[in-house]
Amino acid sequence: MALIVQKYGGSSVGSLDRMHHVANKVIQAKEQGHEVVVVVSAMYGETDRLIRLANALSTQPDSRELDALLSTGEQVSMALLSMALNDKRYPARSFTGSQIGIHTDSIHNNARILEVKTEIITRELKKGHVVVIAGFQGINEHGDITTLGRGGSDTTAVAIAAALKADECQIYTDVDGIYTTDPHLIPEARLLSHISFEEMLEMTSLGAKVLQMRSVELASKHSLPVRVLSSFSDGTGTLVTFEDKIMDKRLVSGIAFSREEAIISISGVPKQIGMEGRILAKIGHANIEVDMIAQNTTAQDTIDFTFTVQRREYPKVLKALEEFATDVGAIAIKTNAKVAKLSLIGIGMRSHTGVASTMFKALGDEGIPIQMITTSEIKISVVVDETQLERGVRAVHQAFELDKEPAAMQKLFVE
Amino acid sequence: MALIVQKYGGSSVGSLDRMHHVANKVIQAKEQGHEVVVVVSAMYGETDRLIRLANALSTQPDSRELDALLSTGEQVSMALLSMALNDKRYPARSFTGSQIGIHTDSIHNNARILEVKTEIITRELKKGHVVVIAGFQGINEHGDITTLGRGGSDTTAVAIAAALKADECQIYTDVDGIYTTDPHLIPEARLLSHISFEEMLEMTSLGAKVLQMRSVELASKHSLPVRVLSSFSDGTGTLVTFEDKIMDKRLVSGIAFSREEAIISISGVPKQIGMEGRILAKIGHANIEVDMIAQNTTAQDTIDFTFTVQRREYPKVLKALEEFATDVGAIAIKTNAKVAKLSLIGIGMRSHTGVASTMFKALGDEGIPIQMITTSEIKISVVVDETQLERGVRAVHQAFELDKEPAAMQKLFVE
Repeated sequence: MALIVQKYGGSSVGSLDRMHHVANKVIQAKEQGHEVVVVVSAMYGETDRLIRLANALSTQPDSRELDALLSTGEQVSMALLSMALNDKRYPARSFTGSQIGIHTDSIHNNARILEVKTEIITRELKKGHVVVIAGFQGINEHGDITTLGRGGSDTTAVAIAAALKADECQIYTDVDGIYTTDPHLIPEARLLSHISFEEMLEMTSLGAKVLQMRSVELASKHSLPVRVLSSFSDGTGTLVTFEDKIMDKRLVSGIAFSREEAIISISGVPKQIGMEGRILAKIGHANIEVDMIAQNTTAQDTIDFTFTVQRREYPKVLKALEEFATDVGAIAIKTNAKVAKLSLIGIGMRSHTGVASTMFKALGDEGIPIQMITTSEIKISVVVDETQLERGVRAVHQAFELDKEPAAMQKLFVE
Repeated sequence: MALIVQKYGGSSVGSLDRMHHVANKVIQAKEQGHEVVVVVSAMYGETDRLIRLANALSTQPDSRELDALLSTGEQVSMALLSMALNDKRYPARSFTGSQIGIHTDSIHNNARILEVKTEIITRELKKGHVVVIAGFQGINEHGDITTLGRGGSDTTAVAIAAALKADECQIYTDVDGIYTTDPHLIPEARLLSHISFEEMLEMTSLGAKVLQMRSVELASKHSLPVRVLSSFSDGTGTLVTFEDKIMDKRLVSGIAFSREEAIISISGVPKQIGMEGRILAKIGHANIEVDMIAQNTTAQDTIDFTFTVQRREYPKVLKALEEFATDVGAIAIKTNAKVAKLSLIGIGMRSHTGVASTMFKALGDEGIPIQMITTSEIKISVVVDETQLERGVRAVHQAFELDKEPAAMQKLFVE
């Protein structure tokens, strides 16, 4: 018998049929002898409906009131799922974030969970009840309702699982799990049975948005195994866990990518201490987030400073930098607003060389110029022209034989 | 400056336009210098929508979960109204029943308010905020969400007004106030500027369902003036208050009526102590509520026992009584399933005779047979054939000159 926390997203409870289906999934776990806590999102479309109501009434809805409004979406789901379970003779009790005692800070619409009380959950589990909890919400120190921001139900589930020291937190979504890359782009993409927390963090921050980033961080901090799986089909999904728990060691786990990027390069900036900080401060003041950053020193004792931003920020960045570049005497600003980022991720690359060169060779063989490179311990990111993204991902996916089971892949790289 | 509790029903907040309109009504009261607490119902149709969802998922929705579900309707309204007020630069804060501390018993779907905490409301009023509270809901001793049953938002408003010792509780509905009788039936019906609590209780229990009965009882108990008025038009409505506060003393205030009644008469029942109790017990066991009861002793030392029930209960009553009547040796059961009840209500009739005879004469002049009569201190009820109800109401309305202002009417009856 294990203690399992399951989370079902909006599309999983998107209709009454789907709600029945979720109830049956919960019952399946109960029948296997597990104690089950369920966290639910609002039914698909409900949050948007409520936001439309709010926007129709107010040009800038009061953030405290918006939270009181939005939190009803999950409350409806929790009550309906609990009814469905009771109707199928599996006693269930639903609770709001406020009832359980999910305490958050006071940043309305984007609150952080500070503490999860476990008394009520433990009491109800002891009675043999399924405990159904409204995701995405909590209360602050004043007793005001708060919400965690979009996708926050994942965080609710992980926080509850961590507080309960659950055996596993299962995140049910509309995908089968984590793939080596986006299967819509590359049909050969393979489902990963395991992935490490670190890899997962790189995957989510790079646009593979299966799990909310904050929830992965939280799970990692509490050593809580998280399983991503589909509520629409059977299958064991992908277990997100610690590196040392992953048996089939491999160099590379997957390829993440994001379109809608823009690259900006300032060349010939005088080499001067603090110059990089001055450039970034200029952009930061315009409230723009910089993603990749690379810097080279040229022979002329000047520096070339290159970075990427989301494409929609591009005009703002240009405006912020133009005057600045002239002031500091930069030679040129070179930009490309139609680029994409391609990132190779794998905990294996920490201890093995040759990964970068294999990647660059694969892109070179395809005739794809690399416009920028950054690396971290478990990731190599390159910027390429957006029109060449798909070919690039396919080439790298093939080069690392990501479509094959890991055992076969290891022979290639491990001496 | 007065402290006013306003309650807006489902049709008053039935659309976003209506919500704006309600916000303006609240602002009007604020502009007059009042402190305002607002209680809101769910938007028109929302509660029914939620009940449909529940019924689609469960043949008999768990009552605790149904309350968790239904309470979201009022929570949506409270947040939206509060947003609209904030948007119009009138600071407002919304609260659920649970947040305020509206404590109820544990009878889900039909709970009774036990206590209303005033700390939060008082604190927010002191800050100059409009306090918007979700009607119809509370929490029980376990922290579970409860609802008060349909129409419960009136009770919420009155309970809050009583706890705050408010100057007035204003119930905004889709009617202008309380009329001398149903203006749909009798166009000459006149709006009453005042009515006593006792009269109002008789009016609501007789089918003039403008106010929930429990809320009138509660207001009366706490000597709280309640004003019924329309959120769709201007006007001061009807003030429900104590008899001694009503200046324009009159004999009769109005005529209430209800269709869909059935009358049952058992005649020739042997006169025997406890017989009436045995008859009623028989009907009570079938879970049927008896409305009017009349009993006569005949010359033959038997009794005639007559009562009315709602028409839909009629077949059940017959079934419950048939065997019984034979057992006790009753002579006959006489029934009429197509009758209506017509009631004349007025605190004035306590101290003045002639009211009943005027009423009976008016019906007699119209050629309407009276099938049953019951009287109480401030009410005379008769049962007539349903086809004759409208003519009967009109005749009595004219006889008491209810379409004219009270001053004129008094001349008729007061010596």
